[in-house]
Parts: sequence; C-alpha cells; structure tokens
Amino acid sequence: MQKKNLYPQDYNPEESIAALATPWGESALAVIRLSGGDSLKLLAGIFSRGGEIVKTAGNTLHYGRITAPDTEELIDEVMIAVYRAPKSYTGEDSAEIFCHGNPAVIKRLIGVLTDSGCRYALPGEFTLRAFMNGKLDLTRAEAVNELIRARTDRARALALNRLSGAIEGKIREIRDSLAGMLAGVEVRLDYPEEELEGEIDLIHEAEGWSLEIEKLLSTYSIGKIVQEGLVVAIAGRTNSGKSTLFNRLLKEERAIVSEFHGTTRDYLEGYISIEGIPLKLIDTAGLREAGDPLEAEGIRRADKIIKNSDLLLYLVDGSLGLTTADRELISAYHDNRKLIPVWSKSDIAATGTPEGFVALSALDGTGIGELSREMVSRTVGNLSASNEERVIDSLRQKELLERAFSSLGDFKEGLLGEVYLDLIAVDLKEAIDALGEITGEVTSVDILNRMFKDFCVGK
Amino acid sequence: MQKKNLYPQDYNPEESIAALATPWGESALAVIRLSGGDSLKLLAGIFSRGGEIVKTAGNTLHYGRITAPDTEELIDEVMIAVYRAPKSYTGEDSAEIFCHGNPAVIKRLIGVLTDSGCRYALPGEFTLRAFMNGKLDLTRAEAVNELIRARTDRARALALNRLSGAIEGKIREIRDSLAGMLAGVEVRLDYPEEELEGEIDLIHEAEGWSLEIEKLLSTYSIGKIVQEGLVVAIAGRTNSGKSTLFNRLLKEERAIVSEFHGTTRDYLEGYISIEGIPLKLIDTAGLREAGDPLEAEGIRRADKIIKNSDLLLYLVDGSLGLTTADRELISAYHDNRKLIPVWSKSDIAATGTPEGFVALSALDGTGIGELSREMVSRTVGNLSASNEERVIDSLRQKELLERAFSSLGDFKEGLLGEVYLDLIAVDLKEAIDALGEITGEVTSVDILNRMFKDFCVGK
Repeated sequence: MQKKNLYPQDYNPEESIAALATPWGESALAVIRLSGGDSLKLLAGIFSRGGEIVKTAGNTLHYGRITAPDTEELIDEVMIAVYRAPKSYTGEDSAEIFCHGNPAVIKRLIGVLTDSGCRYALPGEFTLRAFMNGKLDLTRAEAVNELIRARTDRARALALNRLSGAIEGKIREIRDSLAGMLAGVEVRLDYPEEELEGEIDLIHEAEGWSLEIEKLLSTYSIGKIVQEGLVVAIAGRTNSGKSTLFNRLLKEERAIVSEFHGTTRDYLEGYISIEGIPLKLIDTAGLREAGDPLEAEGIRRADKIIKNSDLLLYLVDGSLGLTTADRELISAYHDNRKLIPVWSKSDIAATGTPEGFVALSALDGTGIGELSREMVSRTVGNLSASNEERVIDSLRQKELLERAFSSLGDFKEGLLGEVYLDLIAVDLKEAIDALGEITGEVTSVDILNRMFKDFCVGK
Repeated sequence: MQKKNLYPQDYNPEESIAALATPWGESALAVIRLSGGDSLKLLAGIFSRGGEIVKTAGNTLHYGRITAPDTEELIDEVMIAVYRAPKSYTGEDSAEIFCHGNPAVIKRLIGVLTDSGCRYALPGEFTLRAFMNGKLDLTRAEAVNELIRARTDRARALALNRLSGAIEGKIREIRDSLAGMLAGVEVRLDYPEEELEGEIDLIHEAEGWSLEIEKLLSTYSIGKIVQEGLVVAIAGRTNSGKSTLFNRLLKEERAIVSEFHGTTRDYLEGYISIEGIPLKLIDTAGLREAGDPLEAEGIRRADKIIKNSDLLLYLVDGSLGLTTADRELISAYHDNRKLIPVWSKSDIAATGTPEGFVALSALDGTGIGELSREMVSRTVGNLSASNEERVIDSLRQKELLERAFSSLGDFKEGLLGEVYLDLIAVDLKEAIDALGEITGEVTSVDILNRMFKDFCVGK
C-alpha cells in the first residue's frame, strides 16, 4: 500500500539520482548509475580525472580514483562511462561507475555520492526519466522490467519484442486511426445540417479496430503465463513415486538457469521450462514423508500447496491400482482443468491404464513426454505465440485495452442506433484516451506510481 | 583438492575467455567480460555494429543488438565497452557487454559467446592474464581479490593500499638491495685471493633488511583479522540476557552492509564492525530456547559454536549472581584470551560486579562501549595499523617472507661464523628468490594455481 506513493505529486525531474545497478554481492564488478541534474559535476568533484568528465562529449570511458572530498580517503579505483544528453538511457547527462564488486566498496561509494548531493534513486526511476524525456513510451518502459524478470528464453524473446516497440507500434496505429475517425465525426458535428454519409464505413472501420484490440487482448493469458510461470504440485499417496517423477522432470526438461547458479537446491522445489513456460515444481512428498512427528501439519501444508497451484499431478501407484483413498483424494482435489491423474509405475502395473490417466514409468522415463504435453495443453491450451508475435503480459495494458474495446463497442452501437453524433464522439474519445494511456501520451503521477512500483532500483 | 589443478601446466594464454563479472540475479544491469585471443572478432560476429568494434582504437562505447548467428534470434539490446591492448585490465584486447540483468539473458548471451569460440573463464583468469601481461605483480593481483572480499572500510582501505603497490614497492626495494649485496659478494668470489672487506657493513645491511621483513611479517595477524573477521559467540544460561545483548550490539555498533541489503535477517547471526574489524555475532540463545524438544541437540550445537568462535561473551545474570552452573560453564569454556565474562543486568544486580567481569546493562546500553573495547583488546591487542600502512593478509606472502627472513638469518650467521662466501651466497640467493616469488618475478604454474583458486570468476 505504501508503494502507491513511491513518486510524489511534485516529483522533481531535475534532481541528480544514483543507484546500484547490479545485484548486491561479491563479484568482479559492480555498476553504480548516476543521472540527471548536476550528476556529472558532482562526480567530477570526487574523481581524480574530474576535468575529463566535465569536458567530454559523451560515450567515453575514464579510468581513475574516487576519493571522499572531506577526508580525502581513497574509496576505489574505477572506470567511469559518461553519456551526454540526449544520447543516454535516460536522455539526461549520466554516468556509470564500474567499481570493485564488494558491498563495502559499493556502500562507501554510494555514501560519497549522496553526501555530494545525489539522491538514491527510486525503483524504475532511470526508466521513468527515460520516459519523461521521450526515450521510450510506457509499453517499452514496462518491457524493460519484463525483460529483467523473464525466466525463459521465450519470455525473454517476447519481452524483447515489446521493448523493440511491437506493442507501441500497434497501439499507435489503432489510436491514430481512431483519431482520424474522430476528426471525420467532428467535421460533421460542425455541419449538422449535412446528411450523415459514410456511416457504414465508420461502422466497418470501428469493427476492424475492435478486432485488432481483441486480438491483442487474447494474447494476455499466454503472455502472463510465459512471463510469470505456473506452479505445478506433485501429490499422491506415500510411495506412489512423487520424488522419482520430480527428479525425472528436473532431469529431462531443461532446468532453468541452473548451470551458472551457485545456490543450494531446495529439494522440495525445482524450476523447469516446458515450451518456454517457466514451471515451479513442488514435490509434496517431502512435506509428508520427512519423518515429521506432526504428520497432520505436513498434510495441511501439502493441501495448501495443492490449492495454490496451477496444476496438480496426482500419482496413483499402478502396481497397487486405484485405492479408495486415491478415489477420495482425486475427487477432493478434482477440477477438470487443473488435475492430471498419473498412472505411475506403469511398467509394473497390475492392470491397464484407466481412462483419462497418463501412464508413466518415471524410472525409465516412459510417458514423461506425454505428461509434458498434457501439462502444456491443460494450461496454455490452444493459446500459442511465436517469439515474433505481439504478446502483452501487463495487467495495466490489458485493462486499458478492455476499456478501449468497450468504448469502441459503445461507439459502434451508437452508430447503429443512430444516436446523436456528439454523444457517440465521446465514446470514441474515451477509446482514444485509453489507448493513449497505454503508451503514455495520456498520463498522470498515479499511472507512473502504479507502473514503476515493481521495478528494480537502478533501472 | 581438485582446485589445485585449476590451471593446466600447458595453459594457453591465447584463448578468448568470457565470464559474467557481476553477481548472478535480477537487476538493472549485468556485465559480461571478454578478453584475449579473437574475442573482439568473435563479438563483432554477433553484434549489430560489429564493424565499429573491430575498427575502434579502444576505450569506446557501442550500442547495438546481439543476435545468435545460427538462428538469427535477437538475444538482447546491449552496450559494449571495447578496450585495446595494452590499455585494458588484462593488457589484451577486451570488451565488456552491459546487458539486461536477467539470468535468462545472461545465460543465452554466454551460450552464444561460447558457441562462437570463447571459453568460460576460470576463477581469477582475467587477473592472471593481467599478471602475465605485466599489468600488475602478484601482490597487487592478490589485492584485487582481497578488495572484493573486504567487509569493512578498514579492510577495504588496506586492500586498496596493497592494490596501489604498497607491498610490491617494499618487497622490490628489499629484493633489489639484497641483489646488490649479492653482486658485491659475487665480485669477491671471483677474486678469492683478495681479503674480505666490508664484512661488518654486510652484516649491518642484512640486519636492516631482516628488520624490514620482520616488520611486514608482524602485520599479518592484524591484516588477517581485518580481512577475514572474527566469530563472537554470546552464551550463558537461559534468561541471562543473551538476545538483548545481541540486539543491542547490532544496533549500537555499525552493522555491516545492512542498509542496501534486501535479504531476510537470520536472527541467530548478525554482522557488525568494531574498529574496522568484521565481527560475526552468534546468539546461542536461539539454539536452546526455541522450544526444540531435543534440548540436548541445542546444547550440543551451542557447544560447537563456542568451540569454533574466536571470542566468547559469557553472560551471568547479575540479579541472580554467580550460580554453581555458571562457575562450571565458565571453567569449562575458560581460555584466558577467549572468554569475556559479562555481568549482565548490572542495573538490577544484587551485588557489585566481580573482578574481571564487564558490567553491562544491555537494556540501556551501559557497558557496551567497555565491552567493545575489551573485545578489540582481547583479539587485536596492541596490534594496530592505520589505513595508510603496509599490512599483509596473504598466507602465501607471509610464508615467503618467513622463508626470506630465515635465509637472510642464515646468511648473517654465516658471515659472523666466517663460513665460505660461496656457501652463504646461496642463502642470500634463496632470500632473493623468496621475495621474487612474492611479486611473481619468480613463478610457476603451481604458484598461480595456489593464488587464483579463491578468486571470483569474471575477475
């Protein structure tokens, strides 16, 4: 709730801002970003080659030392990249300091910068500045954040497509066309005595653009799933093969970003990507079978995970067959789209696979492919999108598109119902405004607060 | 053990190497570094403005897109910094790619680079190249890593001083002087019939340099403590005020790097800095009082922590006075330097503070200052070092200095004992070699393997 007021109503775009742009931790390098106001002058005051920074035409690199101005304490040896307005990310004079990747160094450097007059940047503030300075529209600003959060290649490719202006271009095209229609309508308003001509054309045109908006809207489900991913719970009775399936899926399907990742794996959870959709697998086995004396607590936790998951793989031990307990559990969790019943240990199953079950031998991998396809079909279904397509995943954009769609619908109905033109012109204007809000041609501090609250600091 | 063979005997310095130089995670920016071999040519092959990269004279910035050469898939929009040999960190042609700080992007980018012919760099390999190309000696190479690992301002300042060549300069001075002495000795070896003159001068000179080596050696204890820090356990019986003291210390003494750090605090451990020494505080309270039914296990863990700590703050509840259990515990853990007995709740203590105890009221902070001073004096004692001083913290350097010191001692004794000059010249040579190994004038793959194994990848 507090985040709503990230940016004040009297936001001052003249302040110098600075922030760490790389993750916090020990590493070869860290990057601290500065932009706007007097940031280059402030930086020059603490840098051994300050003169170069003040004089350069931009897009240049400068090696030197940063020193605390009061104590003359040497802080670090750094490389500084200087960018000059408007040829910078923010469109302002700005700089990047490449220092040693050490929290103690970063902390001192930021301390010296803020002492010199920089303010520590708010989340997304560099991108906000870029928007304010016309470097990118709001769909591309959102795409910056989406690109950083993308967890699979497909999500990355779709976000990159948005960043390249795919959504912006389409929205502007629709908006400009609607604006053209509105101009036509307004001409007629000025000459009310003339007969209304070309009404049918207007209806057809509005219908055409409605379809375009609808097409964009229809991409939201897949866009959101590709960007945010799904939670898949693996459940079933003790010894039904949950952990074997969990490990097999992690092995067969490409695990996300594990190669270079140094953190300890949590054996209850794993991340995989199927057809570019990030899936978080949760093995509920660990919850019940860890020898927890409080078994009831384990069951309660598994139950909660299953309820909060997007998909449930329910395993039945094929060698034992369906027990009453299985039937009860399946009917308890049953939800036509959500539950995939799996006939596990199918290689040693006593009977054939029951109707609707996926036969699986997690030991040798038989059935894993079918299960993966079933998971995709249950969640994404017929939705699909190539990496080149325009796909939205922003709730903000979806809601505004819905508003535009609805207003355009009212406009069409008004035309058909022969409502006075000055009344239906208002509907058309509303549709145009909603589209303008998507790209940011129509904007307010509230919109910006809503948009930038989930950004990284430093971007 | 495996790490010993990080660098092969036939290490090829002509290969193009690449690595992520920033921490792994979501952030505004990530930096991927390339160096050596054909790295600029390889990069040009996947970059939309490859021509610029191949032609530039270096120290330039280039904005463009990276595309997978086979699939023509767009990977990211990036900024590239190009450096030309010898004006680069490694002394080779090299580049830094500034991409969106997303694991999916980083992974694909590194994939495209390695597909194009780059090898993923070994830990410290960029610094190794810098050493091989004469950009820095081994003391400064070590300082790069020490600077990244430094956890307090003081550790940072001392590492930065080493990076500036403070140790290198001193070692070279001593080594050059000993080499001068050796030249003098060798001249006399060529004219054995002449009488040995200036023997007294040689002894004095050797003594002078021995003292200098000893002085450097004496800084190792403080250097190591400032760099690596100390573990301080807080123990005592239930309700003796352990958690109150723990929280008070975290509040009063500057907590390390917490301001910008987003991770959840582990309430059992906290990091503070006293006089520039990083201290890891462990509150053993949580281990015993968390309602764990296996109380014995908690006691066993606390006992292990106490045994592995550098300092133990043992709290006695002053309002209850010393109990038999306290006396037993104190004598069990007693170690003259390690244990600091604390008379807690001194404000409501029944009796005066016993001899040797620090009186403390953690509630209002009385005694915290005295306790901090006592912690410093118990660990660092009379050792001290200003930020400008030459302080070593490398075990490698310490061992080589000891070897030089011992060989120089043998040389002096030989002179005093009137041993044949050709025999004692060997001692002098050994001292010179040991010093040469510190800076890297004398080196081998084994030395490099030992040195670089603890480096970050990407540095």
